[in-house]
Amino acid sequence: MTGITTHGEKRLVLVSGRAHPQLAKDVARELDIELLPTTAYDFANGEIYVRFNESVRGSDVFVLQSHTSPINQWLMEQLIMVDALKRASAKRITVVAPFYPYARQDKKHRGREPISARLVADLFKTAGADRLMSVDLHAAQSQGFFDGPVDHLWAQPILTDYVRSRIDPARTSVVSPDAGRIRVAEMWAAKFGGVPLAFVHKTRDISKPNQAVANRVVGEVEGRTAVLVDDLIDTGGTIAEAVKVVLAAGASDVIVAATHGVLSDPAAQRLSESGAREVIVTDTLPITADKRFPQLTVLPIAPLLARAIREVFDDGSVTSLFDGVA
Amino acid sequence: MTGITTHGEKRLVLVSGRAHPQLAKDVARELDIELLPTTAYDFANGEIYVRFNESVRGSDVFVLQSHTSPINQWLMEQLIMVDALKRASAKRITVVAPFYPYARQDKKHRGREPISARLVADLFKTAGADRLMSVDLHAAQSQGFFDGPVDHLWAQPILTDYVRSRIDPARTSVVSPDAGRIRVAEMWAAKFGGVPLAFVHKTRDISKPNQAVANRVVGEVEGRTAVLVDDLIDTGGTIAEAVKVVLAAGASDVIVAATHGVLSDPAAQRLSESGAREVIVTDTLPITADKRFPQLTVLPIAPLLARAIREVFDDGSVTSLFDGVA
Amino acid sequence: MTGITTHGEKRLVLVSGRAHPQLAKDVARELDIELLPTTAYDFANGEIYVRFNESVRGSDVFVLQSHTSPINQWLMEQLIMVDALKRASAKRITVVAPFYPYARQDKKHRGREPISARLVADLFKTAGADRLMSVDLHAAQSQGFFDGPVDHLWAQPILTDYVRSRIDPARTSVVSPDAGRIRVAEMWAAKFGGVPLAFVHKTRDISKPNQAVANRVVGEVEGRTAVLVDDLIDTGGTIAEAVKVVLAAGASDVIVAATHGVLSDPAAQRLSESGAREVIVTDTLPITADKRFPQLTVLPIAPLLARAIREVFDDGSVTSLFDGVA
Amino acid sequence: MTGITTHGEKRLVLVSGRAHPQLAKDVARELDIELLPTTAYDFANGEIYVRFNESVRGSDVFVLQSHTSPINQWLMEQLIMVDALKRASAKRITVVAPFYPYARQDKKHRGREPISARLVADLFKTAGADRLMSVDLHAAQSQGFFDGPVDHLWAQPILTDYVRSRIDPARTSVVSPDAGRIRVAEMWAAKFGGVPLAFVHKTRDISKPNQAVANRVVGEVEGRTAVLVDDLIDTGGTIAEAVKVVLAAGASDVIVAATHGVLSDPAAQRLSESGAREVIVTDTLPITADKRFPQLTVLPIAPLLARAIREVFDDGSVTSLFDGVA
Amino acid sequence: MTGITTHGEKRLVLVSGRAHPQLAKDVARELDIELLPTTAYDFANGEIYVRFNESVRGSDVFVLQSHTSPINQWLMEQLIMVDALKRASAKRITVVAPFYPYARQDKKHRGREPISARLVADLFKTAGADRLMSVDLHAAQSQGFFDGPVDHLWAQPILTDYVRSRIDPARTSVVSPDAGRIRVAEMWAAKFGGVPLAFVHKTRDISKPNQAVANRVVGEVEGRTAVLVDDLIDTGGTIAEAVKVVLAAGASDVIVAATHGVLSDPAAQRLSESGAREVIVTDTLPITADKRFPQLTVLPIAPLLARAIREVFDDGSVTSLFDGVA
Amino acid sequence: MTGITTHGEKRLVLVSGRAHPQLAKDVARELDIELLPTTAYDFANGEIYVRFNESVRGSDVFVLQSHTSPINQWLMEQLIMVDALKRASAKRITVVAPFYPYARQDKKHRGREPISARLVADLFKTAGADRLMSVDLHAAQSQGFFDGPVDHLWAQPILTDYVRSRIDPARTSVVSPDAGRIRVAEMWAAKFGGVPLAFVHKTRDISKPNQAVANRVVGEVEGRTAVLVDDLIDTGGTIAEAVKVVLAAGASDVIVAATHGVLSDPAAQRLSESGAREVIVTDTLPITADKRFPQLTVLPIAPLLARAIREVFDDGSVTSLFDGVA
Repeated sequence: MTGITTHGEKRLVLVSGRAHPQLAKDVARELDIELLPTTAYDFANGEIYVRFNESVRGSDVFVLQSHTSPINQWLMEQLIMVDALKRASAKRITVVAPFYPYARQDKKHRGREPISARLVADLFKTAGADRLMSVDLHAAQSQGFFDGPVDHLWAQPILTDYVRSRIDPARTSVVSPDAGRIRVAEMWAAKFGGVPLAFVHKTRDISKPNQAVANRVVGEVEGRTAVLVDDLIDTGGTIAEAVKVVLAAGASDVIVAATHGVLSDPAAQRLSESGAREVIVTDTLPITADKRFPQLTVLPIAPLLARAIREVFDDGSVTSLFDGVA
Repeated sequence: MTGITTHGEKRLVLVSGRAHPQLAKDVARELDIELLPTTAYDFANGEIYVRFNESVRGSDVFVLQSHTSPINQWLMEQLIMVDALKRASAKRITVVAPFYPYARQDKKHRGREPISARLVADLFKTAGADRLMSVDLHAAQSQGFFDGPVDHLWAQPILTDYVRSRIDPARTSVVSPDAGRIRVAEMWAAKFGGVPLAFVHKTRDISKPNQAVANRVVGEVEGRTAVLVDDLIDTGGTIAEAVKVVLAAGASDVIVAATHGVLSDPAAQRLSESGAREVIVTDTLPITADKRFPQLTVLPIAPLLARAIREVFDDGSVTSLFDGVA
Repeated sequence: MTGITTHGEKRLVLVSGRAHPQLAKDVARELDIELLPTTAYDFANGEIYVRFNESVRGSDVFVLQSHTSPINQWLMEQLIMVDALKRASAKRITVVAPFYPYARQDKKHRGREPISARLVADLFKTAGADRLMSVDLHAAQSQGFFDGPVDHLWAQPILTDYVRSRIDPARTSVVSPDAGRIRVAEMWAAKFGGVPLAFVHKTRDISKPNQAVANRVVGEVEGRTAVLVDDLIDTGGTIAEAVKVVLAAGASDVIVAATHGVLSDPAAQRLSESGAREVIVTDTLPITADKRFPQLTVLPIAPLLARAIREVFDDGSVTSLFDGVA
Repeated sequence: MTGITTHGEKRLVLVSGRAHPQLAKDVARELDIELLPTTAYDFANGEIYVRFNESVRGSDVFVLQSHTSPINQWLMEQLIMVDALKRASAKRITVVAPFYPYARQDKKHRGREPISARLVADLFKTAGADRLMSVDLHAAQSQGFFDGPVDHLWAQPILTDYVRSRIDPARTSVVSPDAGRIRVAEMWAAKFGGVPLAFVHKTRDISKPNQAVANRVVGEVEGRTAVLVDDLIDTGGTIAEAVKVVLAAGASDVIVAATHGVLSDPAAQRLSESGAREVIVTDTLPITADKRFPQLTVLPIAPLLARAIREVFDDGSVTSLFDGVA
Repeated sequence: MTGITTHGEKRLVLVSGRAHPQLAKDVARELDIELLPTTAYDFANGEIYVRFNESVRGSDVFVLQSHTSPINQWLMEQLIMVDALKRASAKRITVVAPFYPYARQDKKHRGREPISARLVADLFKTAGADRLMSVDLHAAQSQGFFDGPVDHLWAQPILTDYVRSRIDPARTSVVSPDAGRIRVAEMWAAKFGGVPLAFVHKTRDISKPNQAVANRVVGEVEGRTAVLVDDLIDTGGTIAEAVKVVLAAGASDVIVAATHGVLSDPAAQRLSESGAREVIVTDTLPITADKRFPQLTVLPIAPLLARAIREVFDDGSVTSLFDGVA
Repeated sequence: MTGITTHGEKRLVLVSGRAHPQLAKDVARELDIELLPTTAYDFANGEIYVRFNESVRGSDVFVLQSHTSPINQWLMEQLIMVDALKRASAKRITVVAPFYPYARQDKKHRGREPISARLVADLFKTAGADRLMSVDLHAAQSQGFFDGPVDHLWAQPILTDYVRSRIDPARTSVVSPDAGRIRVAEMWAAKFGGVPLAFVHKTRDISKPNQAVANRVVGEVEGRTAVLVDDLIDTGGTIAEAVKVVLAAGASDVIVAATHGVLSDPAAQRLSESGAREVIVTDTLPITADKRFPQLTVLPIAPLLARAIREVFDDGSVTSLFDGVA
């Protein structure tokens, strides 16, 4: 037969944006590889320049970026990196966005709003991404925004394994900070062997006309360690309020756990003063010094990302990294 | 200037599939127009044939179909109608799907599942749809599955106006049949002036190992009319169970209200025997004789659809037909 | 060089819809593999649920479905399967549709009709299909409706090999049931060594004003075995009429052969009473009990599909499975 | 309401490539407009330059080109014109290709061939065409190659009206030059009131081993005027041979009619020497001096194109210009 | 005819991002309209929220944004606005980007770089933009990056009209700051009636090994007013150096003119100390207080933008606003 | 695991159009392979037919075409070849266009012009090309016109290595024929160790009103060998004029070097009579007998193309074949 025939090979390459260099190093170390050497900087007017210093031809490239503030800056950087990879003949490009940007803008609450979470999926696709990998999406429906495979990783075991070592299940309740996210709390309660479930409920207190909203704990927390769970903590307002309400309802102490530590100002102050014994997040986003406070515990997400990347590269599926066992 | 210049006109055209001819007639009557004469039938092996008997060149066409069982048949018919409209030079094609097909398959619950609600949006787009119109989507995120304008109509006022005439707000509670859909119940409670809110909660009853799940009412229903609300009623199992639990918790009586009356067998039997005083749905789906039972009230959706179609045609936005005022 | 390099592998996977389980088993057995375990069922309102029970990451997947009645049901099931495969990171997805759905709607006969055969190709593409495989398309032009590779298999040798064993070529004519499909008959006649060719011609019989159309055999059939050939038999009306006309023209007996046995009611009755000695089809579509009759012979299509699938997987091209030697 | 509101207008613009300037002038005259002034020439290395000398912003532009030899030159010119119109903000662009280029390459006859007719449709779409208009496509299936509206015009009435004036129906037969195109001949025969139908059939003459193929007239032509009809005449080989066979079969004389006069060398010589009384084509393609011969009659296609363009512009549909009444 | 027919209208709407509110107000005032009321702010983690407070259904919307620092923030805001407009049924969306973001990254200077200017065009398209409008692109080739109409406005007349009033053409030279942009300077020189043309040339001075590059004026500047022209001034390094070299070559004084005043730090200091008599830019980008210095003159771009928007809305083309007269 | 697993292989295949068979042979010989046997010819009306005589399933195919006159013919042939490869299941298709067609039409010089270089990129993409390879693009920005990887090869070393052997650098100047292309000349000067740089400048000679334009050499050429460099030579007018001006300015002799020898008539005459000592081009385009003249030297481009093809196939990047080291 005419032509040249050789054996095929495949090569895994990891590249990273500048938002969270420690996470990139951690993932690379878990994979036992080096990050692909990359040049990236801003021009004087804020335009980003990126160049890869080694060939990526024919490679299976994972582009890691952590979407912390300034989030638009890091999103554009990742899009530009994907464009450069596409033009440099990468074989397959997987966007790794542990915290999916604009995840909370996943629907129109009112007319004439954007659906930015869908827009972001389209921007990644347009730049050249073949696949997406993310952790604990705000709404699972967002997976459907991308026209291609999405590896939806599940950080809950990392948090539950840690929290279990800090509590006595017999004296624990799992609490959701609002009525809209009880399903996650249900999974936690099941993980702890069927402990009581409760949540904080906002009701209109009709007896007090000037105070429109009152928070109330529904479910059993008295004398128990309340484990407050959510997917993310941004400014910490809802969580800090929930801690107070739960304590007021007689909880013996409170542990807060969430996958994504956005921790926008004044989250650190609010949470450290909230009365919670411990606040636990992963490092899907960088936890800079100004975001830290004594009660904060940060668990590493790199092992999960690294194992998922390796599985995807190997077309494997032996573990339960993925939401629903992919 | 070279050429021929004339004044532009625009023409509204309404066409309908065969799934729910009464609804099509009702919408046409509300609009004070005739349905476009259309030929549609099945070949012996089930393939569908469609042809429009009048020109649609340059028209603003609304293609109404009701996605009742056999749902794949009616979905394909609508796709084929859109294809024919596209090839016949329709200027703009709006798919009107009052009950969005596959709306509940909006995410992967487990690995290797489809996201059929996104697939349906893509199929409509591929066939040639420019826009979608639907009523009370199961998850608002599904709007983001379509790459274009979605008119998300809001049937709640139709239901609340009717129910309000049947209750005494001072002795009413709004109840959600499960923990995942409390937000809708909250809107109902607010509409009724801040009446109590409750819901049915599935918990693991650890004291009874052989009976894994127990349903429990959370919130105040005793001595009150419980208004159970949901977006759709399919086989009626969850709703009928909720009626019983609410009555067992001391509700004086129960009214059930939902936008979409799927009412798959044995919903009619279950609901008629559930103890509910009245079950209210709209006719987004045809309510055939076998689905009817004494306590069922069916409210017409045609006025809402007709007003929305007219607004879209006129580029108007003076009313509050749309979810969030579009 | 940075990264991890390994040897590439490739994996053939066969999945099947529910329309024709026997064909799926037969193809799997020919390939000496197991079908990928798959869960598929209908919800109460007719929506389809599909899930693959094993990983398909990185696999070369062939999705077999047989488009028998209810044809829209099976088409949607296949689209949903393709969507699930795409989202589960299958490397390449080939739709195997032995009988291409809506193949006969390949052009507009009149204005404002759809071109459903093109629509179907676009739907497959949108869902995520990379390739199509089909057998004996109604019009070869339909290959051009899909934007990608189409493996157009050729079932004629299966039929001619069988028929040759049932006839004496020296006393045989090949007959086309109408003027539009003589080219297929020409290929049969050549295969049998240049036997006479004839066809049934519809003419306007101007001598009988009240009987607008008369069927007439053109060509030599007297005293011969007439082999009537077509691509498919649907309700059997045209074929049964052709059998009668050929017998009336003096044929000693008639054998009917077609690739696709649609056999919609009342085909079984019509053909069994037509006077044909034997009617031969392949099992591209399931031949259920109600479609069978004494003179029917069903030849297996699985060997052809299996060999083509293996060739495609192996990038081979040593055989003549494909229309025109692909 | 914020903004500026004005009444809409629409403007019809006709532009033309350089292949067939007379046809462009004729169409413009029928429309009673001027062609848009256009600059077009070739650079020294054959690259084409095009520029429109007047604004086309917001216009409904029809781009006429006649795909005669050098056909690739004229196809590229039309693509370039469409690109320029798209970039100049034309509102809608309709490609008018009276003779669709590469229409005969509408399927793969053998493996590893292109489907050039589909490719051409995709090239038009990519350049920016919204719609296509063509006359008497070689295969009606080609309409399905374009993802959008196709106006398929029907030139038969032009030809039949003329031929009817040249014959005595009572002594006429309609003849197809081969078995694959009888359907067109059937429509002619019906138009003439049900005159006899015949065709030239290629058969393997098994009695003469050294002469593999013999042409034979099937049907009644003796003593009659035979009207030989086809969609196009290229080198004239098939038609000239058919004329001879029909005359040999006893036809009193022969008239040849076809929509597209490709008339590639040596068509003029073959046809003039064939024995046909008259050969009739339209001027969808330019009939240059070297293609003309005494028996040739050329009917104007401009009136049909002009009326169709005006109907499309006006969103009208009162006439029967279109194949199947669009 | 079935349906409702009305006269078409069209409505011009202007919306603006938050980067340069003064420019938006100026353009609106020139158009004699109000800006569409819009809500836009940042969430705590930097994600942008946008909502339009009035209907845009069926409107011809122009989305103005000025891409100043933080440029990625403003680019994302504009993309989100376009997404919201698309989903709100705007009829046509024109992105107005007076200074095209990432315009200088229009090619790969080395391997494995992005082509960010093309990426930006694709992002606009994906979000939903139908058209682009920009002023004095860095490279005219960038027009080709967008798949649709680009209105490339030409600010030169604004600058030349002003400068002409400040100089004596008989004693003026036009100077390009480097060899790569002489074509612009040529147009200036022609505008001034054929004044001498010069430029600053970087050469390798081989006589001084330790000083690799020397700048040299080529052309006649001695005793003349040198008008230094460029498309943009970023940090001002090249321009300030050119001013010095031109003065050293004997120019009597120097005027600097550029369309886009990026003026990144330390441009203000460099230019004010460069020795230039006057530095002239337009306000395509906001000239904040920290960017201003005594010699700076800012000319308004709003009249040009407003006239172009009006022309596009009216499908007009009577003026010479556009590059090359569109 | 279910299915069949085998080792992957990859196969390089080279196919060629008919424009420049010698180049195809040379590239194949450099790669030590045979060209894939291909059938290609023109039908009587100019339509092209192409078929590959061997399987290309799963192959990495490079499609070489040289875009000489008739350039539209060869462009369409290449598009048709790509379509056939796509439909024949080639795994990856790289268009190799050493001289990119329509490269000079890369922007709108005036309104209502096309951007044909972008159109060509889109046509290649639509036909099925995954990648492009070209040599010395007229404007580097054109790389951005293709939505995918572009291998931009750099022929300068081939030319400079040869020219260096023909000159004494100490007595050489590099000269650009016009002000717009000095950057290439700068690279040449650097390659020769920093020799003087000059260029021919068109100025308006205001002292001679009747002679609007005068060409003038800027820079040092007196007594030196002037090496005139450009990317292509078409009709040779600019180059021949530049040779004369340089000689008039005192150059001792002139060598002309350009990558692409378009050499449209009357280039051969102009250049042979221009006074240049030697004119050097590569054979990216066929240099037919009528284009040759005594002073012409043609350097082979095949080694560069072959090495680049092999690197792309091997995912290698060890050499500096690519513009900017890809």
